[in-house]
Amino acid sequence: MSALDDVLNKESLSQLNTQELNELAEDLRAEMIAATSLNGGHLASSLGAVELIIAAHRVLDLPHDKLLFDVGHQAYAHKMLTGRLGGFSQLRQSGGVSGFTRRNESVFDVHDSGHASDAVATAAGIATARDYLGGDEKIVTIVGDASIAGGLSFEALNYAGQAQLKKFVVILNDNEMSIAPSVGALSSYLAYLRTNPHYTNTRDQLEAHLASTGHIGDILVRLGERAKQATKTFFVPGMLFEEFGFTYLGPINGHDIHSVEDTLIRGLSLDCPVLIHAITQKGKGFEPAEKNPEIFHGVGPFDAKTGELLKKSSSNPTCTQVFAETLLEEAKKDESIVAITAAMPDGTGLALLRDKMPKRFFDVGIAEECAVTLASGMAIQGLTPVVAIYSTFLQRAYDEISTNICLPQHHVIFAVDRAGLVGEDGSTHHGMFDIAYLRTLPHMRIIAPSNSDELKNALKFALKLDGPVAIRYPRGSLPMAQESQQEPFNFLAREAWTSLEDTSLIPQITVLALGKMVNVAIEACKTIAQTYSVSVIDMRWAKPIDTEAVKRACQSKLVVTLEDGTKEGGFGSGVLEEISDSGRNANTLILGLPADYISHGSLNDLYRQCGIDSQGVADSILERASSLIDNGSDK
Amino acid sequence: MSALDDVLNKESLSQLNTQELNELAEDLRAEMIAATSLNGGHLASSLGAVELIIAAHRVLDLPHDKLLFDVGHQAYAHKMLTGRLGGFSQLRQSGGVSGFTRRNESVFDVHDSGHASDAVATAAGIATARDYLGGDEKIVTIVGDASIAGGLSFEALNYAGQAQLKKFVVILNDNEMSIAPSVGALSSYLAYLRTNPHYTNTRDQLEAHLASTGHIGDILVRLGERAKQATKTFFVPGMLFEEFGFTYLGPINGHDIHSVEDTLIRGLSLDCPVLIHAITQKGKGFEPAEKNPEIFHGVGPFDAKTGELLKKSSSNPTCTQVFAETLLEEAKKDESIVAITAAMPDGTGLALLRDKMPKRFFDVGIAEECAVTLASGMAIQGLTPVVAIYSTFLQRAYDEISTNICLPQHHVIFAVDRAGLVGEDGSTHHGMFDIAYLRTLPHMRIIAPSNSDELKNALKFALKLDGPVAIRYPRGSLPMAQESQQEPFNFLAREAWTSLEDTSLIPQITVLALGKMVNVAIEACKTIAQTYSVSVIDMRWAKPIDTEAVKRACQSKLVVTLEDGTKEGGFGSGVLEEISDSGRNANTLILGLPADYISHGSLNDLYRQCGIDSQGVADSILERASSLIDNGSDK
Repeated sequence: MSALDDVLNKESLSQLNTQELNELAEDLRAEMIAATSLNGGHLASSLGAVELIIAAHRVLDLPHDKLLFDVGHQAYAHKMLTGRLGGFSQLRQSGGVSGFTRRNESVFDVHDSGHASDAVATAAGIATARDYLGGDEKIVTIVGDASIAGGLSFEALNYAGQAQLKKFVVILNDNEMSIAPSVGALSSYLAYLRTNPHYTNTRDQLEAHLASTGHIGDILVRLGERAKQATKTFFVPGMLFEEFGFTYLGPINGHDIHSVEDTLIRGLSLDCPVLIHAITQKGKGFEPAEKNPEIFHGVGPFDAKTGELLKKSSSNPTCTQVFAETLLEEAKKDESIVAITAAMPDGTGLALLRDKMPKRFFDVGIAEECAVTLASGMAIQGLTPVVAIYSTFLQRAYDEISTNICLPQHHVIFAVDRAGLVGEDGSTHHGMFDIAYLRTLPHMRIIAPSNSDELKNALKFALKLDGPVAIRYPRGSLPMAQESQQEPFNFLAREAWTSLEDTSLIPQITVLALGKMVNVAIEACKTIAQTYSVSVIDMRWAKPIDTEAVKRACQSKLVVTLEDGTKEGGFGSGVLEEISDSGRNANTLILGLPADYISHGSLNDLYRQCGIDSQGVADSILERASSLIDNGSDK
Repeated sequence: MSALDDVLNKESLSQLNTQELNELAEDLRAEMIAATSLNGGHLASSLGAVELIIAAHRVLDLPHDKLLFDVGHQAYAHKMLTGRLGGFSQLRQSGGVSGFTRRNESVFDVHDSGHASDAVATAAGIATARDYLGGDEKIVTIVGDASIAGGLSFEALNYAGQAQLKKFVVILNDNEMSIAPSVGALSSYLAYLRTNPHYTNTRDQLEAHLASTGHIGDILVRLGERAKQATKTFFVPGMLFEEFGFTYLGPINGHDIHSVEDTLIRGLSLDCPVLIHAITQKGKGFEPAEKNPEIFHGVGPFDAKTGELLKKSSSNPTCTQVFAETLLEEAKKDESIVAITAAMPDGTGLALLRDKMPKRFFDVGIAEECAVTLASGMAIQGLTPVVAIYSTFLQRAYDEISTNICLPQHHVIFAVDRAGLVGEDGSTHHGMFDIAYLRTLPHMRIIAPSNSDELKNALKFALKLDGPVAIRYPRGSLPMAQESQQEPFNFLAREAWTSLEDTSLIPQITVLALGKMVNVAIEACKTIAQTYSVSVIDMRWAKPIDTEAVKRACQSKLVVTLEDGTKEGGFGSGVLEEISDSGRNANTLILGLPADYISHGSLNDLYRQCGIDSQGVADSILERASSLIDNGSDK
């Protein structure tokens, strides 16, 4: 650890010689492997970006200059070099460092990264403000090859290119696979650049080369501007970026610190925006990750020596697996079903469909807007597209869901995975808002199954409907259904649990619960039942809400709603609207996630912090009930 | 009208000779000018696309083949050629044709256009489904030069290029200014293509040219693949699109029907996706529109001969003007204020700031996501960005507002223009959802001023706050403040009107109204006051809600909320949450826009249809009150 300790003490890298730098890189990698083997994390990306980050830290004067990371899960080395090594033993746990850059964690973290393709636009805003204010900050952004193909990245390249921002460098960290192997025309284009014979040439060398081919150059130059353009393409491979107004440097070896450093210094000295194309290896320096970069992209605990993944305790299949298996089963019966992912074939489980039915699987890359709009076109032709995207990333397509799917009432199924809290990834990744942002869109319907069988049945049910349907399900697994829970899936809520022996009676408290919170409600109500009569209704649908179930609940002295989404504008809010619209009123208590972004940590920790673990739910209900219901005397 | 009548009778264009085609184009233009001079519309864009549309209709077998329009306001000729000429006398009015393509209007309208940059992705979905189903439909998309630069367009080009979709042509309708003059590096690039000497050459001609320059070609070819690429750039100007996997044809004269037709036929015959670069003139054929394409982009009624705009009846300044003038005034005092638009300098009023303070004005083109993310970067550097975007288009940036602005609590002001119903543009353009989608985001605050002075004061107040603030205001003007309404702007609601002489009494009904609906509520309550005592509270903020005002309202027998946003998840829903959270309950009535997309028509017609004109509001309140309040006996 000597090199690393030294750097952290000196807070400067500038003194290290080549050997010391290489040792430092090795030390950083060892720390990453040790930390992620304990609590999991985005190991492969961070291993690949070590030299890029060391070079950037050597060239830049941080935090005066700005270093941004797109997505941010490749930034572990940056975090370690800025005084946060100690926090890595609790990486992504409550109190430990975040797995992404976070402004509230360090002045060296420029933006709250996590959602792809936002860093170039943020950097462009910083550079524009710098120029307006007359500042001199250098601005460097590290972007993966999948993130650069997102729409927002293109918009930002288009802006920065025209604005001709100076001291503005985008390092394209090209590892040929950001999460899954990259897709899209741009990806093929990058592959072409990588394999061309001038691999390690910088523009300097290329220009020298041009001078040495005087004859052809002369002929071309005589032909004017078009010829100049052609000459440029001939010697500068990154014409696509040049056409956006960037100067392209590369491709270079992204694991050669000095090469990255030299190119970065040169890029920052040019009077225009610059894109440096750096080739890196995902998982670099840890053999298991080099061999299986997809598995070590976002990985759980593993054996730090062998790379063997540690077994998970739960034996239930994950929601992702249940979804994917059910979809495959249904797709076998219905030729119209096709599936779309935005760069997440493994995360969403659609890899199963891809492997069995490759012609019915479409990966558009990190381009959620395109995924949803593509689905609209497929629906126009009579297909039944299933779009599987994590709740938090589906936010990117809000407008397309509204305008391109809900308005024309296309039959598109949204498989909203990782709904609710996601735990270790934290504030940028929780699936908190999907009920709120989907519920207000006309014609949208939203199912939240409470157990694995319901998820299966919900998907089958949704496929048979018409119009847009979203099915939201949490990270990890839902319990298997109890015998008593195996009822046919339909638009109705169902009683999940009651303390009353005579179920024709009205309980003092009715809890209307949604999705995975049904089981939390049942646990809570076992405590509450010691004081009050109480029933738990599994509402199944966040929209449309079962009006009869709400009507019946209004006969209780207290109606509680419980969801793992934001309290504001969520399912509970929908229940309040239903009560108001029906001309009733009731004492209500809305329980859900607080109106704030929630940090990272284990799922259990976070639900407890948010007060919607079973204990918190019981406490909240008992507190409200005590002021409303006379001592439980008529229990 | 002979040529046009003839076409409409035959339902076929194929028989017409060149002269007849030119007459037809003239007739179509005359109809457009006549129709828009009466009720306004998107004249300039539609005038510019006449020949493109005639050619596409001649080449394609519609509706089997698919013709899509990005944004769709250039499609008037398409509508006239598909049996809808008669509806143009009521263009954009209730019962008349929509100003955009609408699936529920005609089988020839493939998608509900209106939001920029979605057509290529939709078309790609159609083509992908076609290939999966084994169909043979040809798919052509007409896209403006500003729309092609939106992120979603790039994502779709990236997908279509890799998928190598066949019989798939994108016609780039390049008029050098889609709404305002185009911005962005791509725009400069297109300008370069337009001005190159091979203006009218198609690839055929270019390839012939290549053959004729055998010597240089030979030298280059000997140098291998890189040389081939260079050769291609040398003779094919649209290398940017080629690098996305498209074959580029053009530029061609988009007003030469035969040239467009020939190029389109050739493009559809190639085994790859094709981009045809067609140069057109916005406003073509109507001199006033040719001279002032920005004014005739979306124009109100005008004199069909002279082009002189008919005076508007309202003498109040529009909200847009009030916003822009106030912003300019504040910007003079505060150097940190900068303004961002997404291609709408005129529509948002920011042209005023652009003209007076060009260094503090930024236009990113039709790229709302980039606009919002750019603002986050500017805020990081300490500036106070004001992002002015129409409510409906701001939807495109939902994720960026959440992740890049609200999460880090940046002080960014969102000037949400055209909030509420917008009238003639219809379902894709109403600002219905902004309260619902902004309200659930942590740290966001939302002001909805009820009169011009409040708008002014709200903006000043918001600029002095910290964190994100949205100010939503309607199309057109708000009334000027009455003497009595001139109270200092703060976080509190204010009583706007009451039927009670003794204002310490509690009215039977309290109406909590928001924004422009405050005046509607006052009108309605003048009727209601004949039966019940009633007060109207101007809530000012959709979030945070003034809890004291709600508490006081709960003492009434009926609490009504009124907003010009979607009922589901909107301001009313927030009031219900506040009542529930405070442990109260109340009889409530939530009034707002129905949970459906709303068609086009005049503002008055639409508010009446939605039941939230003053009559509708009075009726709804009286109906609910009659079942709750004993005959008004204790009035």
